[in-house]
Amino acid sequence: MSKPYVRLNKDDVAVLMVDHQAGLLSLVRDFDPDVFKNNVLALADIASFFELPTILTTSFEDGPNGPLVPELKEMFPEAPYIARPGQINAWDNEDFVAAVKATGKKQLLIAGVVTEVCVAFPALSAVEAGYDVFVVTDASGTFNPVTRDAAWQRMSQAGVQLMSWFAVGGELHRDWRNDIEGFGGLLAGHLPAYSNLMQSYAQQAR
Amino acid sequence: MSKPYVRLNKDDVAVLMVDHQAGLLSLVRDFDPDVFKNNVLALADIASFFELPTILTTSFEDGPNGPLVPELKEMFPEAPYIARPGQINAWDNEDFVAAVKATGKKQLLIAGVVTEVCVAFPALSAVEAGYDVFVVTDASGTFNPVTRDAAWQRMSQAGVQLMSWFAVGGELHRDWRNDIEGFGGLLAGHLPAYSNLMQSYAQQAR
Amino acid sequence: MSKPYVRLNKDDVAVLMVDHQAGLLSLVRDFDPDVFKNNVLALADIASFFELPTILTTSFEDGPNGPLVPELKEMFPEAPYIARPGQINAWDNEDFVAAVKATGKKQLLIAGVVTEVCVAFPALSAVEAGYDVFVVTDASGTFNPVTRDAAWQRMSQAGVQLMSWFAVGGELHRDWRNDIEGFGGLLAGHLPAYSNLMQSYAQQAR
Amino acid sequence: MSKPYVRLNKDDVAVLMVDHQAGLLSLVRDFDPDVFKNNVLALADIASFFELPTILTTSFEDGPNGPLVPELKEMFPEAPYIARPGQINAWDNEDFVAAVKATGKKQLLIAGVVTEVCVAFPALSAVEAGYDVFVVTDASGTFNPVTRDAAWQRMSQAGVQLMSWFAVGGELHRDWRNDIEGFGGLLAGHLPAYSNLMQSYAQQAR
Amino acid sequence: MSKPYVRLNKDDVAVLMVDHQAGLLSLVRDFDPDVFKNNVLALADIASFFELPTILTTSFEDGPNGPLVPELKEMFPEAPYIARPGQINAWDNEDFVAAVKATGKKQLLIAGVVTEVCVAFPALSAVEAGYDVFVVTDASGTFNPVTRDAAWQRMSQAGVQLMSWFAVGGELHRDWRNDIEGFGGLLAGHLPAYSNLMQSYAQQAR
Amino acid sequence: MSKPYVRLNKDDVAVLMVDHQAGLLSLVRDFDPDVFKNNVLALADIASFFELPTILTTSFEDGPNGPLVPELKEMFPEAPYIARPGQINAWDNEDFVAAVKATGKKQLLIAGVVTEVCVAFPALSAVEAGYDVFVVTDASGTFNPVTRDAAWQRMSQAGVQLMSWFAVGGELHRDWRNDIEGFGGLLAGHLPAYSNLMQSYAQQAR
Amino acid sequence: MSKPYVRLNKDDVAVLMVDHQAGLLSLVRDFDPDVFKNNVLALADIASFFELPTILTTSFEDGPNGPLVPELKEMFPEAPYIARPGQINAWDNEDFVAAVKATGKKQLLIAGVVTEVCVAFPALSAVEAGYDVFVVTDASGTFNPVTRDAAWQRMSQAGVQLMSWFAVGGELHRDWRNDIEGFGGLLAGHLPAYSNLMQSYAQQAR
Amino acid sequence: MSKPYVRLNKDDVAVLMVDHQAGLLSLVRDFDPDVFKNNVLALADIASFFELPTILTTSFEDGPNGPLVPELKEMFPEAPYIARPGQINAWDNEDFVAAVKATGKKQLLIAGVVTEVCVAFPALSAVEAGYDVFVVTDASGTFNPVTRDAAWQRMSQAGVQLMSWFAVGGELHRDWRNDIEGFGGLLAGHLPAYSNLMQSYAQQAR
Repeated sequence: MSKPYVRLNKDDVAVLMVDHQAGLLSLVRDFDPDVFKNNVLALADIASFFELPTILTTSFEDGPNGPLVPELKEMFPEAPYIARPGQINAWDNEDFVAAVKATGKKQLLIAGVVTEVCVAFPALSAVEAGYDVFVVTDASGTFNPVTRDAAWQRMSQAGVQLMSWFAVGGELHRDWRNDIEGFGGLLAGHLPAYSNLMQSYAQQAR
Repeated sequence: MSKPYVRLNKDDVAVLMVDHQAGLLSLVRDFDPDVFKNNVLALADIASFFELPTILTTSFEDGPNGPLVPELKEMFPEAPYIARPGQINAWDNEDFVAAVKATGKKQLLIAGVVTEVCVAFPALSAVEAGYDVFVVTDASGTFNPVTRDAAWQRMSQAGVQLMSWFAVGGELHRDWRNDIEGFGGLLAGHLPAYSNLMQSYAQQAR
Repeated sequence: MSKPYVRLNKDDVAVLMVDHQAGLLSLVRDFDPDVFKNNVLALADIASFFELPTILTTSFEDGPNGPLVPELKEMFPEAPYIARPGQINAWDNEDFVAAVKATGKKQLLIAGVVTEVCVAFPALSAVEAGYDVFVVTDASGTFNPVTRDAAWQRMSQAGVQLMSWFAVGGELHRDWRNDIEGFGGLLAGHLPAYSNLMQSYAQQAR
Repeated sequence: MSKPYVRLNKDDVAVLMVDHQAGLLSLVRDFDPDVFKNNVLALADIASFFELPTILTTSFEDGPNGPLVPELKEMFPEAPYIARPGQINAWDNEDFVAAVKATGKKQLLIAGVVTEVCVAFPALSAVEAGYDVFVVTDASGTFNPVTRDAAWQRMSQAGVQLMSWFAVGGELHRDWRNDIEGFGGLLAGHLPAYSNLMQSYAQQAR
Repeated sequence: MSKPYVRLNKDDVAVLMVDHQAGLLSLVRDFDPDVFKNNVLALADIASFFELPTILTTSFEDGPNGPLVPELKEMFPEAPYIARPGQINAWDNEDFVAAVKATGKKQLLIAGVVTEVCVAFPALSAVEAGYDVFVVTDASGTFNPVTRDAAWQRMSQAGVQLMSWFAVGGELHRDWRNDIEGFGGLLAGHLPAYSNLMQSYAQQAR
Repeated sequence: MSKPYVRLNKDDVAVLMVDHQAGLLSLVRDFDPDVFKNNVLALADIASFFELPTILTTSFEDGPNGPLVPELKEMFPEAPYIARPGQINAWDNEDFVAAVKATGKKQLLIAGVVTEVCVAFPALSAVEAGYDVFVVTDASGTFNPVTRDAAWQRMSQAGVQLMSWFAVGGELHRDWRNDIEGFGGLLAGHLPAYSNLMQSYAQQAR
Repeated sequence: MSKPYVRLNKDDVAVLMVDHQAGLLSLVRDFDPDVFKNNVLALADIASFFELPTILTTSFEDGPNGPLVPELKEMFPEAPYIARPGQINAWDNEDFVAAVKATGKKQLLIAGVVTEVCVAFPALSAVEAGYDVFVVTDASGTFNPVTRDAAWQRMSQAGVQLMSWFAVGGELHRDWRNDIEGFGGLLAGHLPAYSNLMQSYAQQAR
Repeated sequence: MSKPYVRLNKDDVAVLMVDHQAGLLSLVRDFDPDVFKNNVLALADIASFFELPTILTTSFEDGPNGPLVPELKEMFPEAPYIARPGQINAWDNEDFVAAVKATGKKQLLIAGVVTEVCVAFPALSAVEAGYDVFVVTDASGTFNPVTRDAAWQRMSQAGVQLMSWFAVGGELHRDWRNDIEGFGGLLAGHLPAYSNLMQSYAQQAR
């Protein structure tokens, strides 16, 4: 209450990508598959662009849940990768918590599949552990909007902040002058409507 | 506030199934009938799988409200069964409260028909009585989404946690290794999309 | 916080019907007209059934806003009727506040048109004046669901409880045995689906 | 093709109300129950207002399907009433077809529950028998909009005309001067928005 | 069939604006009021821009239906204005049909309120009378989308072509070079998104 | 045109189940997974109940498309089973067409995944080959409703009739007296709302 | 908590219009373009009508984001106009904060594009700086309703009040008698449904 | 009628991409921007994969409508490119019609922005000119679904076939064995859900 605006600070942020696995993605139906894929990759690009420490984790990846989507593996070859042997809440896995602690960051961006389990459980655990937790809502998916609404409500009630990837990008970047080309490219790559604006502008400039 | 994550603990949970009666179910229109039936039975299977003490109650079951759905009666033949003579809020019925107390549990999972009355009233009463209350949102139904939203808001405002049956199952199970076959079977039985993943996986394994 | 369940008590409730006028009703588009008319009359029947003191008020009824809907006038011929000369927030009208005080009740049920103005303003004022305020969400209408959502959020943030007319009826009645015929008739009159249950039941009983 | 506008003529119309039974109505979910009840009664009032020969029929009314809704029985005490012993398509019942023929009319207005069976089957049979068939779309209900769309498409493909009760009323009345009071009253009774217009107008006229 | 593309030709088109009256507009709920007002005025601007003969008609404008919206009266001060004394189908009014014939046009653009009556009836009559009929779908409004769908289906079945005002404008103009400024202005005035494109373009050109 | 009502006749119907495979089902998003699974099994039960010759076919079942859903295999152990080596349109597979011909039936019920390909292609081919074709719309699924609408329009344009499984069941059964218990059981098994009616009825009968 | 109703007071309000630029508006898809344009201009008219100090700001207006919409520039020729050189959160721009302080007001009305960035960031900063913050929800737009919902939740969590422009107008005006003509005109100009009421009333008065 | 199944034949197909320009794309709101971009590129990939002659055309590309999206230019560097000087209906441009004729194909796949103008006009002209016309519905976009529905109805009425890009791909390919790798890659590149199936399959195969 004394600090109403807990603001993302790129020097104090770690990103947790939880269970974006090929099989589990077939369960996600609160977003169109094209839209959801774009959102997840946009968040990954943000993590990459701001050089945020990123942690990947999966659940039973050798079974029906399937492998981590290959794009994430390729983008973060050096990232801690915790293939959990059974824990549903990633925070119950000691390696995972150790990896989070090792980043030395206090603000956690969490996204995953499915929202009310793979995202909500570690998000609530992290709040309890004293972190500032931000859930990236549109890079997290679940069965349907009703389930999502309940999960959002539960997390929000506990103090989690809900943000879209676009809001995350803007709050981290703070000032276009830090890198106009780079940030513009990131947006254009994931927002066709913004890309169209840039193309119309560029043509006329010629 | 000091304890942001009140987490389900299978050793401290009782389940209250309120007024899932054949007549009243015809009032439920915020879920498709197929979906709602599946959700209610999924919650019942969870109660059964984790051997949670379960209490059944009905309102005027000899009148237009109709009998308890037969599947619930069959699954919980030993459960306390309180056919309320008139109380709308089950918590106003002494036998019901006594049955809850007799479980010795502090965390209550509540689901029922209709959400804003048969669920919300005992949920709010239980919060006042000091229980940790979790409403299973998708095993609770009502007339339309607008009514549901108001009921969710009122309950959430009072400290009730909103969870879907899938989130409940995951939070209770905690670790797949506790019973991979059993929990997988439970999910496959109620999530056709997960069942499809398992079948594709199994075929390829052959 | 110390009292999580502020529960309606029929001996301590007054009903405020705000600006249900023929012209203003043409602005309501977050409910189908048939549905909204039914909801408003259901709330009026509840007020009547439980003999709750009821206050009617209108805004500029001789102009484009039009007359109070005739059914309300007829149902509450003795009710205080405050035709406000200009105040938008009914609570700014001294006669209105005096009428509320004169009821001697501490719990206020408020409904009206449009939600974010005619309902939200007096609701917030009444909260500030120390009343327990319950807004009847489905007997209150406005331009569209987005506007409604914002109004609900603002009121809920200030401690207003959101309830549907059906929840209000159930919480006031508490026990069917207080008047089975009467309450059943009230429900059947406003819930065609419940009426159908009663007819099927009655036929078979013959 | 040679006659693109087959227009309702009140001297040549009979109305068929098929299976509007209390139990079956609980299956209807493509309309809100308040809205559907209003639509069915509006069609009944139209039949009554224009003194159209009307035929009632039910399917297994002593079983789970339940009794005909009582309002229809009361409004048409003299109407042929065919309680079908088993035929799903009412047109397969000889008494029903005989009753239709006995009206001597060539244009048939059909409504019922559920659209793709109780309405579509006799509608298609009547087209084949040479009648001009008009299905009253909003006084006919079914499980969901997807089912309705398929039923509409099948009927339309066969030459059935789809009309709402309001369109039916307007096409039958043709000229307000035939009975301004009567027709205005019919509309006001079933269209709250139109009723509001009339009340605002009447007040100002005073 | 031999002529699959019956194409609008600005030299052979008349516009019929049917019952866009202040009271009746309160019944229109298949479009947002802002959107519908814009659509009707866009069609009026098209009629004006292409100097199409335009006919205005109203139904009972001195009663609850209310006056023609003032913008239409102002835009077409010289247009035939038929205040129908009672005919619901404008085509049943001899003056109206005479006015249509007097235009000497064979293609009729029809829009009005409500779609299934005030639009569909004269549209079907005009098809029968041998005209090529185009209904402007988004300048025609009614109670809800279900009613609209049935009306569209009935008209389409009879050979009516369904077009939006934007399609009408484009088919009439045929070539931007006929009047770039004028047509661009028309679009910008009714399409905020197009207006934004023009402003961005213009600024950069400076 | 000469035969507007082409009616299902249980002695002249064959059922074609096309590509209901575990992998492909993850693409279906125009129905909730619970609802779609129920619809497919309802159609299978209908085929079984009326002893209709049924043909199963799959596409690349050893690859990502996955195996046929096991319930279908179990229900039709004797049915012709054509695992197509590559043909996308099942009608391009000679064994499939031979199996259809071998049934000696003239009316074909087709359902499958996805609607616009696996259903629409053989449906159009079968129309061309002179069959009466009925697509079971709710046992056929695809990516989203927009795609479905286009597929329905294309098939309907070519003369395919669109029916839901419930309509199919009713049109085949024709008269409840042919087997009240059996048909009632079939409906109760797939329509929870109908099952509820039966339970209320049965309880009261006791 | 001690002051549940923080009420708008026209003597203590400033209005911040953030990034309503031609290019950025093409990103707004949670409102129809016609509706959104009307909402923004309605808020501008309110600022003008109540003579509220208003501050305009833009982001990179010479690039793809495009110029401020011309109507806003024309309505507030004297307003502070801060073309930010790069700061994404307007509150990070010293000139902007200085302009806000210079107004001497404590209540801030904020609207802009897009909601979760250009609105939420300065709204949260202003709360932290001790202002009472009101976000005008329908004059603020973003990519889709899911993103909007998350942004609303985050702001509401921090104490921001969510209001529509209509609620803002009503709360500022307080009493129609302060200027009946003026306020009525403002409403009629932005609410076609209210304008229709006024026209019907006016005609009858003649 | 004599040929109910007009089937795509890759040796007789040409593709017309009409006005997919950066500015015009900001008008498209019946598809999410991510989804629409994917659909357009999927159609382009199909044209490329099957080596279909492809024609590009634009309208006023130096003005607010903006340049053709760069991906299309890059994919079809050799394609006829008709920058129309003013004709709204591309078929009114002689060069365009000549380019179509020059392909020597009889089946035309048309997609563009906006559906009811840039797609519908040339589609109807091409039908009249004797071509078999297939509109790729999901690679064509417009202002909203209501406008789209009217455009689809008009085109379908004239004999145009409506297909999604996925249906087009399947009908052209006919048999997976023609190129399993290539066609699978095309699908995986545009259907994340299909790509997920392939990844799960591939991992298990390892």
